Amino acid sequence: MTAAATVKEELARRAASVEEFLVTCLRDRGIPDRLLASMEYSLLAGGKRLRPVLVLSWCGMLGGEPDKAMPFAASMECIHTYSLIHDDLPAMDDDDLRRGKPSNHKRFDEATAILAGDGLLTEAFGLMSAASIVRGLPADRVLRAIFVLAQAAGAGGMVGGQAVDMEFTGRTGVPLPELQRMHAMKTGALITAACECGAILAGAPEADVANAREFGRNIGVAFQIVDDVLDVVSDTETLGKPAGSDEAMGKTTYPALMGLDKSKQLAVEYVETALTHLSGYYGGEQEFLWQLARYIVDRVY
Amino acid sequence: MTAAATVKEELARRAASVEEFLVTCLRDRGIPDRLLASMEYSLLAGGKRLRPVLVLSWCGMLGGEPDKAMPFAASMECIHTYSLIHDDLPAMDDDDLRRGKPSNHKRFDEATAILAGDGLLTEAFGLMSAASIVRGLPADRVLRAIFVLAQAAGAGGMVGGQAVDMEFTGRTGVPLPELQRMHAMKTGALITAACECGAILAGAPEADVANAREFGRNIGVAFQIVDDVLDVVSDTETLGKPAGSDEAMGKTTYPALMGLDKSKQLAVEYVETALTHLSGYYGGEQEFLWQLARYIVDRVY
Repeated sequence: MTAAATVKEELARRAASVEEFLVTCLRDRGIPDRLLASMEYSLLAGGKRLRPVLVLSWCGMLGGEPDKAMPFAASMECIHTYSLIHDDLPAMDDDDLRRGKPSNHKRFDEATAILAGDGLLTEAFGLMSAASIVRGLPADRVLRAIFVLAQAAGAGGMVGGQAVDMEFTGRTGVPLPELQRMHAMKTGALITAACECGAILAGAPEADVANAREFGRNIGVAFQIVDDVLDVVSDTETLGKPAGSDEAMGKTTYPALMGLDKSKQLAVEYVETALTHLSGYYGGEQEFLWQLARYIVDRVY
Repeated sequence: MTAAATVKEELARRAASVEEFLVTCLRDRGIPDRLLASMEYSLLAGGKRLRPVLVLSWCGMLGGEPDKAMPFAASMECIHTYSLIHDDLPAMDDDDLRRGKPSNHKRFDEATAILAGDGLLTEAFGLMSAASIVRGLPADRVLRAIFVLAQAAGAGGMVGGQAVDMEFTGRTGVPLPELQRMHAMKTGALITAACECGAILAGAPEADVANAREFGRNIGVAFQIVDDVLDVVSDTETLGKPAGSDEAMGKTTYPALMGLDKSKQLAVEYVETALTHLSGYYGGEQEFLWQLARYIVDRVY
């Protein structure tokens, strides 16, 4: 990263290279037309591509080959996208808008949206294994990363977090530790796994893998707090989804529990802790990850 | 298999050993209570456990260690179960009954059923990687099997087949080749992958992997034809779901296209072709697979 480039530009540049891969990764695989259209509608609807970028950056910083990790990195975006499609369904959060466009089941239909999510989740694991089979990463590393990602995305992680979120919705007096545990599962686990898998795919020693995991865990919490804050202070156009929807849906949030100022302060503290796990590294990737972590909280200032 | 044991008893015996593994495989993984209850409600609702048994038999026949392949075999049942939960949803086939019990979304709720399916699909890939990480199968074999299974279960396979099935439902005059292609994706791909993955996990030469695949492909078609036939000739109690539901839903079936007798004859022909791919092998596992293939069509005579 050149000194002149802001982290936002650099993130966009890296997101564009992920995008380039995402555009072709579902083609020529025998996917029926309408289903493919539905999957690509959501997968290529924009977004910061934060999770794939985290995989590639941690992999690169620890001496790995990000090019070989690209299919694995892209798989994180497939998983993230599938979770958004299913979360938006009428039986779940019943959201009509996503990233400023009709949500998947609004643009297509409910059955297609369910299947598009199922398809993206399954294709994700195909992409992960392709990181070894097509790009030549060592099989044992890829397999360990698949194991880590399956735990993070599964019923004890992201899927379980959504289930708990549904239980909490409309319930008053959810205590902070329970809220934090839910978020750690629902959004934190995948961000944590992105960093950890990047380190694993690089073949890094366990101490580095632990740093990656802790960095991810802490920015994951900060990210969620900032999301809650933005839902209060931002407008619908900026968010691409209805502002204030958390309160409207009866969701317990950080601002609701501790106020805006304390929420922002807490996010800063988590980012500071995340940065301690970068202190032993050097070079352009370290600088990028450092600024990326700071950028998460800068969005609310 | 002793000469006295019928194939049905032997299948039940093997299913019981799969069951034993399934009962514990989701425990102690941090899955929220209600979600876990929903996942186990469907996963442990009985069934022939045909797909895991095929993995273990092919693995054993080709000199592999079925014990080590058990987590991988179990993952096939997780994937099969998730597909049934999602297929039953109101937006899809809208089935209230499954194996004689209320379907998952009827017993729990729609959101939980969607998440239970998502959870089972994701845990499946965790189990697959565990075949290497916990049980010590070579990583490269497991990774290749994951790749094969992801293709079979994904949007170009099972998920895509369900999407096409939805498109076909209520449409008259679906031609036989299109019907066959849909079934090959929707039900055939997973049965084929079960056999193929068993061979891959055994570390078998490519010629054996090809035999496993062709055996699976052919019994998969036979299995679907028999299913269609049973929907016409059987009763609701025996099926555990409403008999005649294919016709009621406007689904094109083999009996509708070619009549009952020709359908049965076609199933026999596919089984005969499947058996040619067993002709080079010997021993108890070969005998079991032989009788299992025959048993598929015997159900309708």
